[in-house]
Amino acid sequence: MRKYAVLALTLLGLVAMLPAASAADPSGASNPATLEGVMSSINYIWVLICAFLVFFMQAGFAMVEAGMVRVKNVANVLMKNFMDFVMGTVVFLVIGYSLFMGTDIGGIVGDPTTAFLLVGDAYDVSTMLSWFFMLVFAATAVTIVSGAIAERPKFKTYLVYSAVVTAFIYPMYAHWVWGGGWLATSDLMVDLGGGYGALDFAGSGVVHALGGMLALAACVVIGPRIGRYTKDGKPLPIPGHNLTMVMLGGFILWFGWFGFNAGSTLNGNQLIIAKICVTTVIAAAGGALSALLISWKRAGAADLGLTVNGMLGGLVGITAGCAWVEPWAALLIGVVAGFIVCYGVWLMERKGVDDVVGAISVHGFNGLWGLIALGLFADGTYGVYTADGPLVTGLLYGNAGFLAVQLINAAVVAMWALGTGFALFYGLKRTVGIRVSPEEELQGLDISEHNVSAYPEMVTKELTMSKEGMQ
Amino acid sequence: MRKYAVLALTLLGLVAMLPAASAADPSGASNPATLEGVMSSINYIWVLICAFLVFFMQAGFAMVEAGMVRVKNVANVLMKNFMDFVMGTVVFLVIGYSLFMGTDIGGIVGDPTTAFLLVGDAYDVSTMLSWFFMLVFAATAVTIVSGAIAERPKFKTYLVYSAVVTAFIYPMYAHWVWGGGWLATSDLMVDLGGGYGALDFAGSGVVHALGGMLALAACVVIGPRIGRYTKDGKPLPIPGHNLTMVMLGGFILWFGWFGFNAGSTLNGNQLIIAKICVTTVIAAAGGALSALLISWKRAGAADLGLTVNGMLGGLVGITAGCAWVEPWAALLIGVVAGFIVCYGVWLMERKGVDDVVGAISVHGFNGLWGLIALGLFADGTYGVYTADGPLVTGLLYGNAGFLAVQLINAAVVAMWALGTGFALFYGLKRTVGIRVSPEEELQGLDISEHNVSAYPEMVTKELTMSKEGMQ
Amino acid sequence: MRKYAVLALTLLGLVAMLPAASAADPSGASNPATLEGVMSSINYIWVLICAFLVFFMQAGFAMVEAGMVRVKNVANVLMKNFMDFVMGTVVFLVIGYSLFMGTDIGGIVGDPTTAFLLVGDAYDVSTMLSWFFMLVFAATAVTIVSGAIAERPKFKTYLVYSAVVTAFIYPMYAHWVWGGGWLATSDLMVDLGGGYGALDFAGSGVVHALGGMLALAACVVIGPRIGRYTKDGKPLPIPGHNLTMVMLGGFILWFGWFGFNAGSTLNGNQLIIAKICVTTVIAAAGGALSALLISWKRAGAADLGLTVNGMLGGLVGITAGCAWVEPWAALLIGVVAGFIVCYGVWLMERKGVDDVVGAISVHGFNGLWGLIALGLFADGTYGVYTADGPLVTGLLYGNAGFLAVQLINAAVVAMWALGTGFALFYGLKRTVGIRVSPEEELQGLDISEHNVSAYPEMVTKELTMSKEGMQ
Repeated sequence: MRKYAVLALTLLGLVAMLPAASAADPSGASNPATLEGVMSSINYIWVLICAFLVFFMQAGFAMVEAGMVRVKNVANVLMKNFMDFVMGTVVFLVIGYSLFMGTDIGGIVGDPTTAFLLVGDAYDVSTMLSWFFMLVFAATAVTIVSGAIAERPKFKTYLVYSAVVTAFIYPMYAHWVWGGGWLATSDLMVDLGGGYGALDFAGSGVVHALGGMLALAACVVIGPRIGRYTKDGKPLPIPGHNLTMVMLGGFILWFGWFGFNAGSTLNGNQLIIAKICVTTVIAAAGGALSALLISWKRAGAADLGLTVNGMLGGLVGITAGCAWVEPWAALLIGVVAGFIVCYGVWLMERKGVDDVVGAISVHGFNGLWGLIALGLFADGTYGVYTADGPLVTGLLYGNAGFLAVQLINAAVVAMWALGTGFALFYGLKRTVGIRVSPEEELQGLDISEHNVSAYPEMVTKELTMSKEGMQ
Repeated sequence: MRKYAVLALTLLGLVAMLPAASAADPSGASNPATLEGVMSSINYIWVLICAFLVFFMQAGFAMVEAGMVRVKNVANVLMKNFMDFVMGTVVFLVIGYSLFMGTDIGGIVGDPTTAFLLVGDAYDVSTMLSWFFMLVFAATAVTIVSGAIAERPKFKTYLVYSAVVTAFIYPMYAHWVWGGGWLATSDLMVDLGGGYGALDFAGSGVVHALGGMLALAACVVIGPRIGRYTKDGKPLPIPGHNLTMVMLGGFILWFGWFGFNAGSTLNGNQLIIAKICVTTVIAAAGGALSALLISWKRAGAADLGLTVNGMLGGLVGITAGCAWVEPWAALLIGVVAGFIVCYGVWLMERKGVDDVVGAISVHGFNGLWGLIALGLFADGTYGVYTADGPLVTGLLYGNAGFLAVQLINAAVVAMWALGTGFALFYGLKRTVGIRVSPEEELQGLDISEHNVSAYPEMVTKELTMSKEGMQ
Repeated sequence: MRKYAVLALTLLGLVAMLPAASAADPSGASNPATLEGVMSSINYIWVLICAFLVFFMQAGFAMVEAGMVRVKNVANVLMKNFMDFVMGTVVFLVIGYSLFMGTDIGGIVGDPTTAFLLVGDAYDVSTMLSWFFMLVFAATAVTIVSGAIAERPKFKTYLVYSAVVTAFIYPMYAHWVWGGGWLATSDLMVDLGGGYGALDFAGSGVVHALGGMLALAACVVIGPRIGRYTKDGKPLPIPGHNLTMVMLGGFILWFGWFGFNAGSTLNGNQLIIAKICVTTVIAAAGGALSALLISWKRAGAADLGLTVNGMLGGLVGITAGCAWVEPWAALLIGVVAGFIVCYGVWLMERKGVDDVVGAISVHGFNGLWGLIALGLFADGTYGVYTADGPLVTGLLYGNAGFLAVQLINAAVVAMWALGTGFALFYGLKRTVGIRVSPEEELQGLDISEHNVSAYPEMVTKELTMSKEGMQ
């Protein structure tokens, strides 16, 4: 214990030597009893409450993912969900937020010293508000991978992965779109878009396409679970252990998503928040409905997992455009998203990509669809993140250039996430290793990684899987 | 897939031909930096956050209902909970909201074209705010039935049911009370009430009595589950499979109910929201306490299911009067609600009405009690939905006429819901069929309707039920 | 039933005789369309929404506790969690709130008649706002004990316990710190503190140390569960039955904690709420991370239970100082909290104190740590509960006197909770009895106390516990 104490005291001494806040206002003392003061109170309240909801989506992801794995891997997937948020928080405090939102350097990246440990000028209520909101979004992107590659990765490696994504991969791309970087503000993009560059209201691209494409890279590198395919490559179903948790998680995600989308005004004074909730709920319903019908038709039974994933796909699809498209377009975007989920899941399965929860289709493909849909359906009634900016208009309303911008944006996020993702996961595979041993995988990761059983008193059975379904 | 594309493009073409918004303000651009502007921001934030909480009640219903059914029907009841919200969203967008809140036609119904697809004049932030809030309430009413008739209905028929209720049965009655219709505004009712007609602050009648009485009709038409009664009509208990989920669902519903009741100010500027939360929490506690004591005395053991239902009954009972009664009256209303739940559940059981979750007593009987309790206990300190309107006064404070109005209101909702409910369910029974085959019921609906098992790895046992309890 | 009716009517008659509200404003009618009116709307909305989140923490506690007990005691621990909130609500309405927040009598206690049943002058929106917020905090303190002593107490005795704590033990100490009592306002303490007495922003002491120390007293008095120790005193692990619920509960608690800490401004106009959320999330991450590493090193596997408890310990540790310390200090506070959780849990285990969920370490020890940490790290940038009061400064920034005050505060809460706790639990043990019979304990409390099985269809196995772990 002594060495821990020494470490703690050293850290303490170092930090105490940091410069005290100067112009920063850590207490919000300047908030006056004026109309402006009241408006900033409203903004803080709105943004924080929405951030709470986005935080709570972590529970939703955890429940969906836990429900979709087998009993022997439940504790492991829960711990990964939990620890990626924990790692993300620490890493975001040290470096991630600064790279994302720090003073722009050449349109490429933020100044890494901007908000280091939130000391100095960053020890200010407005920076802390931004940091908190951006943290919960970053953590959402990170956590998408955990479900896709469940039931086989090394826990320690997953911690490294989540640190790297929050420190570097997420902040870089997020900077390009939301942090003042080149995709949003370079002359090239702004000219092409007709007055504004790449847009992504709440993160179809920044959060979901990025996370989903990382999941694709991860799934390819780690390979399918033992028993997922027959020797001649036919997929065998591996059903999740608890559909009640899948549904609970789905509802929690939907609940949190209202904060995700409507909170992305970053501002409680914009009445557009009402419209955002409307387009959000409608797209989710559209996605669920089309996924239900498609899966029903194909399998002869209304499939719970695909229906919930269809809803999630609808949410992902509307996330970029939620403030800029009409309710009827939201319905259409959701319906298409349900298609994308179903056919995406089946495609991945055929291609030998073993994505346990369907994250690649739900978040990756629909994240890209969300960016493109914004370029198609933006109806010119709302401006660039505010009601007063230049009105955002898509192809259907005459602005083909903006669709081109969004296509570029979609290509960039896909390439960035796949490029960095393959590099990261191959790197990890070559060094610390990415996958547990076959013995550990067969035994289950709960025992091998955590020495626990999620439900020690329950009598369980091993499922025998065949092409006819599980027995 | 081609035909889906054709369908989608056709829809797209049709909608694009719709008139563009004229006077409507889809972006809220008019919200100025003035005191009025700030007040509308507050209203939007409050109403939306409360709507999120009401939305989350869907998860609460799903968990309570899943916990109260047998393992073999879990996925089915989850899917019904999920899909009734999905269906409701689509139907509300097409027709339901307009019939409810559209321009009043003769006190009977709203103009069905008012907010079709939220295009034209309805593409306005204030209409979208109202639509979103009213949607989550409508969906609550619809979902009440799913638990009552669990473990036996056809999934497809349930989808039809949920569409009809959201399209027509709910909007009509809701219009009469909240949409400017005859129960609230006709001379007859206003004269009798002494200055105001039927009132229902957050929907004891509109949401809960309506849903609960529909559940009664549904249970009668569909008949009890196989094995619920002996040949000579004695009830046999069929215990739910997961009490943890029942309790979790109960907590989620209680949590969401604060949004349900306090959000029904439709307005964040009314400080009465504090009182509403107080009466709400007290009535819930009163209901739980009396149900606990009553069930404990009768059965010799503190019953979890009845206690949670007692709490829910207390919430239903206070919902109509939450803004108009004193805290001590809320306690009394809750205590009576606990009685009603227990004796209601036992009465239904004796009468051969097999209500899996007790929805008829919790929502139906206590919904009626809530309307009447408002007529008894309104204390004349708060006006008609605002602090400034005519003060609402019940029998105990000298206004017998208002109690009469509320009794009429209670009779109307019971008759409307039972009338339309019996018509609907008999109609469905005669046409598409309402109940799965006995073979499917015995096998469980998860396999027959969804081809899944909710917990495929868990080893389960069939319970043998006898009068002495399950073995 | 007749006697219930008589009872109800008598209560009704008594209350109706109470004086009507005089100066009180039960409807908030005075809220004008002015800047001041708007500011109070913001305050009400913020405080209520945060209170909803704190309420929802009850679900978090219930899930964590249910997950950590064996299958045979699940319904019992759920019912205790549920009923202590119910009992607390009723008792707080009758007496608890008045003793806590009533007109101060000699620095010791509030006037018990101040808010009796919230009638008379207490029937006012501002009092009801305060009552509701304080209720959900009081209920949090009470519920901490239920998990610690799970799997053995009599249900009836637990109801008595929860009534006594909400009526008397909690309100007294809370009055001393938050209600204008001697710890916060006496000349002695204020002089020693250098301008202010004991502080506790959101209740590390008032809620968590109090609840945790009561849990310690309860665990000592009730004794360990049968089978928890070998004959020669070696501890045997008794694993919880459902780690998914433990994690879900952990996420819900974390989610609710943002309301717990940031809502304790009691005021939506203070922008410090952003900083509070930041310190809160960072301390939680720090606690989780250190507990993970410590448990991993010791046991060779990343322990889910200790990691979640480390996060909770971090939250408890930051609760007193969340508005007054810097983000880097929050990280340090959290890291230390993770240490305290792990070593506290192992210490209690060695000492023969059988705390099922680790509540003594998480809430008790870290509650004390939170009070002390505030005395160490308060950085002088924020005042006494407002931005404008005297700035709060701890030892590291030169005010040793304030640390002394906080040490006294920590000693007082420990002595008060242990003193009243031992008296209460010994008293209950001697009179109504505190523990079920060994037969009932072995059978499980779900059958003996509630005559139910939480999962009647699941096939379960009894775990054989040995020093090598469970089989």
